[in-house]
Amino acid sequence: MNSKQPIGIFDSGLGGLTVLRSLKKQLPNESFVYIGDTAHVPYGNKSQKSIISYSKTLSEFLIHQHNVKMIVIACNTASAITLNSLQSAFSIPIFDVISPMKNILNHYPRIKRIGVIGTHNTIESQSYNQLLLTTKSDLQIFSQACPLFVPIIEEGLENHKITKMISQEYLKALIVHNIELLILGCTHYPIMQNTIRGCLPPHIDIVDSAELLTLEVKKYLQINNLLSNSNLSSIDIMVTDFNQKFSTFSNKILEIEECSISEIKLF
Amino acid sequence: MNSKQPIGIFDSGLGGLTVLRSLKKQLPNESFVYIGDTAHVPYGNKSQKSIISYSKTLSEFLIHQHNVKMIVIACNTASAITLNSLQSAFSIPIFDVISPMKNILNHYPRIKRIGVIGTHNTIESQSYNQLLLTTKSDLQIFSQACPLFVPIIEEGLENHKITKMISQEYLKALIVHNIELLILGCTHYPIMQNTIRGCLPPHIDIVDSAELLTLEVKKYLQINNLLSNSNLSSIDIMVTDFNQKFSTFSNKILEIEECSISEIKLF
Repeated sequence: MNSKQPIGIFDSGLGGLTVLRSLKKQLPNESFVYIGDTAHVPYGNKSQKSIISYSKTLSEFLIHQHNVKMIVIACNTASAITLNSLQSAFSIPIFDVISPMKNILNHYPRIKRIGVIGTHNTIESQSYNQLLLTTKSDLQIFSQACPLFVPIIEEGLENHKITKMISQEYLKALIVHNIELLILGCTHYPIMQNTIRGCLPPHIDIVDSAELLTLEVKKYLQINNLLSNSNLSSIDIMVTDFNQKFSTFSNKILEIEECSISEIKLF
Repeated sequence: MNSKQPIGIFDSGLGGLTVLRSLKKQLPNESFVYIGDTAHVPYGNKSQKSIISYSKTLSEFLIHQHNVKMIVIACNTASAITLNSLQSAFSIPIFDVISPMKNILNHYPRIKRIGVIGTHNTIESQSYNQLLLTTKSDLQIFSQACPLFVPIIEEGLENHKITKMISQEYLKALIVHNIELLILGCTHYPIMQNTIRGCLPPHIDIVDSAELLTLEVKKYLQINNLLSNSNLSSIDIMVTDFNQKFSTFSNKILEIEECSISEIKLF
């Protein structure tokens, strides 16, 4: 393992690009290889067995074809379902977007009432509840599945008036519980953070999984002398089924003029 | 080709079950083999190339493994994109859910203003507009993409209050044009027909693609002496990725107590 190797990231589609954006911002000298499994997006309605199988194929591709130094599972559904399987199957470090929430109290030490939003699969997995309660057993956690947020974002409707109505409807179920913090438990959700922000009272903070994950990845790289100091860092983006929408989104999310996206037939 | 062979039906997921329901009701002595490509659902966000490739694989499976006498493409997105490719590739008759709309004026001879709703892919393909205008060139067609309806139905939210708000928002754009008829241009939509009905003035009729398709299939079978008179008709339902939701939906849509669903690994 050496510092020059790229960091591998996978997601079911484009949501994980918010994780790539966060990592790139904090780790500008790193190279990244991102693969979005657009042939199977969304993972929310696929079987657990299939999600594990797809995740293994994507990880093997990142390890064997791109010699990555670590893998980041940039999808909450895949994080909840596949982390253990991937850690057993591969020897390189595997990071996910849920586990870093164990550090939430370092950032919000006085917090008592936390809201979590995510897909049906993520909320039903209870992954956040279980993890947060191990940090402090008297935390009060209120969850709300927001199954229409991913389709809304994949359709580019994040600023549409329908989206505001839907957000208000979902979030009022959490607001009545006087939450002090809202965890965005899906890597798509930061894309519609403005709309979500507009539906919340101003004192409720929003936490994006990608931020805590980024701190954890950075710390790991520092401790293990794996931080890159290259001036020739790169971003490679691949998908398992190409469509133009993905390309448009990538440019918007990564705030770069033009990213080159290639299609890889893995399935 | 003989009358005892089953009718093959494919869809990206569960929407096509509304087509199966309609066919079964009018053709109770026929046997059906249905395959839902749940490994790739929804087709709305997949590339045309991939949708053609998936549709060919599904058709080959129905022909070679189940000896079907015809294939029904029970998905509007696949109908708009793959009909010609499948008709070129296979010698058995291929029916789709869009073409039967050419007979709409037989049922509504005085109609002048028609609304069409569908997925983004279907509406952008202009398939309905082009077909309807060949029947009568002075028809006025108003289209509205309703990209959230499929996710709403796949999430089982068809009777949720959010769904009513979204439907009102989508449909008001058609109601202002004084449409006299609304075509449900997606095989999922009949599942939320009650909500759609509730958002329309009572004089606007709703047409479900499956109804006209069923008439066409029946006529074809009669003319070609392929109508089954068996008392041992069966329904086989298969998916490319099994999840429990599909099973629950099938029972509800087909109004039968328990359908047996098997998983077939085609991809």
